[in-house]
Amino acid sequence: MAKHSTIQQPAAIIIFGGTGDLTKRKLIPAFYNLFLSKHLPANFAIYLIGRNEDTNEQFKHDLFDGITSFSRTGKPDDNNWKIFSNNIFYQQGNFLENSTFITLKEHLDAFDKKNKQRCLRTFYFAIAPQFIEATAEGLYKNKICNQVKLDRIVVEKPFGTDLASAKKLNAFLQKRFSEKQLYRIDHYLGKETVQNIMAFRFANTVFSPVWNNQYIDHVQISLSEQVSVGKRGGYYDSSGALRDMVQNHLLQLMCLVAMECPQKYDAECIRNAKVAVLKKIQPFSTADVFKNIVRAQYTAGTINNQPQLGYLEEENIAPASTTETFIAGKFFVNNTRWKGVPFFLATGKCLPKQASVIMIQFKDAPHKIFKDDVVANRLVISIQPDQEISLLFESKIPGVQMHLKPVEMDFTYKESYTEATPEAYETLLLDVLDGDATLFMRSDQVEAAWKVVMPIINAWKKFPKKNVLHYAAGTWGPEAATKLLKPFAKKWVVLPVPKK
Amino acid sequence: MAKHSTIQQPAAIIIFGGTGDLTKRKLIPAFYNLFLSKHLPANFAIYLIGRNEDTNEQFKHDLFDGITSFSRTGKPDDNNWKIFSNNIFYQQGNFLENSTFITLKEHLDAFDKKNKQRCLRTFYFAIAPQFIEATAEGLYKNKICNQVKLDRIVVEKPFGTDLASAKKLNAFLQKRFSEKQLYRIDHYLGKETVQNIMAFRFANTVFSPVWNNQYIDHVQISLSEQVSVGKRGGYYDSSGALRDMVQNHLLQLMCLVAMECPQKYDAECIRNAKVAVLKKIQPFSTADVFKNIVRAQYTAGTINNQPQLGYLEEENIAPASTTETFIAGKFFVNNTRWKGVPFFLATGKCLPKQASVIMIQFKDAPHKIFKDDVVANRLVISIQPDQEISLLFESKIPGVQMHLKPVEMDFTYKESYTEATPEAYETLLLDVLDGDATLFMRSDQVEAAWKVVMPIINAWKKFPKKNVLHYAAGTWGPEAATKLLKPFAKKWVVLPVPKK
Repeated sequence: MAKHSTIQQPAAIIIFGGTGDLTKRKLIPAFYNLFLSKHLPANFAIYLIGRNEDTNEQFKHDLFDGITSFSRTGKPDDNNWKIFSNNIFYQQGNFLENSTFITLKEHLDAFDKKNKQRCLRTFYFAIAPQFIEATAEGLYKNKICNQVKLDRIVVEKPFGTDLASAKKLNAFLQKRFSEKQLYRIDHYLGKETVQNIMAFRFANTVFSPVWNNQYIDHVQISLSEQVSVGKRGGYYDSSGALRDMVQNHLLQLMCLVAMECPQKYDAECIRNAKVAVLKKIQPFSTADVFKNIVRAQYTAGTINNQPQLGYLEEENIAPASTTETFIAGKFFVNNTRWKGVPFFLATGKCLPKQASVIMIQFKDAPHKIFKDDVVANRLVISIQPDQEISLLFESKIPGVQMHLKPVEMDFTYKESYTEATPEAYETLLLDVLDGDATLFMRSDQVEAAWKVVMPIINAWKKFPKKNVLHYAAGTWGPEAATKLLKPFAKKWVVLPVPKK
Repeated sequence: MAKHSTIQQPAAIIIFGGTGDLTKRKLIPAFYNLFLSKHLPANFAIYLIGRNEDTNEQFKHDLFDGITSFSRTGKPDDNNWKIFSNNIFYQQGNFLENSTFITLKEHLDAFDKKNKQRCLRTFYFAIAPQFIEATAEGLYKNKICNQVKLDRIVVEKPFGTDLASAKKLNAFLQKRFSEKQLYRIDHYLGKETVQNIMAFRFANTVFSPVWNNQYIDHVQISLSEQVSVGKRGGYYDSSGALRDMVQNHLLQLMCLVAMECPQKYDAECIRNAKVAVLKKIQPFSTADVFKNIVRAQYTAGTINNQPQLGYLEEENIAPASTTETFIAGKFFVNNTRWKGVPFFLATGKCLPKQASVIMIQFKDAPHKIFKDDVVANRLVISIQPDQEISLLFESKIPGVQMHLKPVEMDFTYKESYTEATPEAYETLLLDVLDGDATLFMRSDQVEAAWKVVMPIINAWKKFPKKNVLHYAAGTWGPEAATKLLKPFAKKWVVLPVPKK
């Protein structure tokens, strides 16, 4: 971990899928902000490769609009935009044709020559999964990404569609590149409050002794989305919430909560500690799947007073699709620390609110000396839209008598920091430029996560119509998800009853 | 503990020292607020006994002004004041003359007769220590306070001036009344945040396992006063900060932090747990006193831009007085939980700010995996002027790199409750009416506290001029108080560096 505040070496950044939504909304705004905060090297070039026919002018105009709409820093000022955009180049090209890579190699060689050294190269695959192998092969065959220490590839999710395909893809990539060059991105890991979980757990004394099954009753992690499947039907219908959210984001958050303290704060030790959690998650039998996993699909409803179509009526969805848009599950980690503590994970689309929250429910207080019922402590880590950590604890209600009430001790980013927090992509892209893979998924991590969800995939494949529940868009999912919590909790604290 | 929200039985309240400051500033405003909040019984009478010649009218006018100036609810409205003040009666009388008690008895008997029952009687001794015995004797001899279940006596501090005098006073009172009738008041115990310490410690899971010498490095408790000795020179010069603040308030706060969980939430169990702490405080040798206790006296200075006389120049102070107006000490509790954990106590007059704070300093985090220096957790319980609990913990600074910074998780009464918190005296007076002695000092508690400070009193008596330090009014006391903290802390977190 050699994190510089500014990258010194000249860097070429190549984005495959340069005209896509991710590039416009996330990647270019992130690079622009890194440029503004002086984290980019003095000499950099961003090559965007896409299939659209486009003029350089029109293209940059689009990127400018993207930054204006989606960057936390808003519309670029003229001077900064001029310098930044002078380093952006558009290359029209088909990832399936070798000529694309030959042209790219010329650009990169010229950039090296201009900088009188072999520069850093970051290849960002912002492309559909079916193009990954061809693009990787193009880089490999043309020896464009052949310096282990200088060249890196960033791969977006989904990384495979099951364990077998993930293994196949890992093998394909590892045959051509070193694992050290591969940065499998899960943007949740770049979020500030998510990164803060490790600081919170391992840089503080007070929560350390209670972070285990002696004191923790259960854990809830929920990522609720307000958006519908929208225009992503084609991809989503063959994927579903399990592959889209659980296999990656939810299991990674669970790892951060459950992991042992890594030996060192470096990429390998941290990822070892995470993989150790995944490997200890209790495997599901088919019966377990139908007992411990709830799946559901949204039907027509209302969100924010707007009518919302049912999932089956959306674009590019198979007429009799049973793909889940909501999933809730009960997971166990079979080790000394967590034996007997359920981790309840849930996520869904078309829910009333967007909210990502981790809730640690502690057991009842060891003493029972007060007349009033005592509510057990609860630690809530809000990831979005609020960034905060709060501890629910019992306190005496002001008054002449001893009555108790749970109150909150809060720490909010908004109140504690004046600086805007960087976007997850800023952190993660700088990490790639810096060669720090801590927040990225190692091959065994991806595979271990697939291994956890495979019994669910298989059970559903075997019984495609069994227990496919429904919920109206704009509601908090099916009742069965709440029943799943029994007897540990009466309700999803963060899902059905948002805090504010 | 049978706490009713309204006392049902008719109650007579008798205040000896009815024209004094305490009555005007604290007692009458507290009774008035209990009346407003409907905690007083429908039939009550307040008899104020003082030596001043006064008309009933002028007298009530003074009380009205007192409430207007000092009550948290402000100026009484006409209607309420009329009802309340109709139940107040002034009786001129000398506590040394038996006629005073004969007259009082007639009033009380008449009140009983009117209410067709022997009513509750609460006798409040808001009088100088030298009148306690005579007043008690008057009540005893005239059989005014002779019903164990109905009659109570409230005694203000100072309760004795050393162990021998406290024992003598206890014996005197216990010969005439049951211990159950005696309510030795320490108003600090009625403060909301102080009462909340027990709720915080015993109704919550998370802090319970770290509340011991394995996780706590040291404790600081400081009560800083901005006021000078003012007009209280006559009393103060023969008392000093040790007797005035340490023997009672500071040791009681220390008990709340250090005590084991009582078996039940009732007066006897709670006071047993407190006495157990006092008895385990490591006794000082004379050498210890001069090593572990710092005493000092203020000299002329400036507070809030106002010139302030030195202590020796104040009214009624002996010219060569060595009475301490500041004291800081290092105490240990010799039991399994606290072995090796110093409790640093400090208090002083003419300090820059009024602030009462308890700070629990935890040890360093068990893991050392971050590059940044990690500041250990710290729990701060602010008693006044701010009422809040805050936990200092390490958090990732928002930004593209992993850097840590201590931040605070806060719970403030101001933000959490819209209702004004009751004054300590409201809570305590209602407790007396309700026969709940939980927050009052039992005889053995008072004696055990004197026992703790006796070696200090004796060492200073033996060496009256040794190590009497000085500090300018408006500064945070002598440098030696800070040195006392070594090697546990570099500074008094709450004393010399107020939080906001």
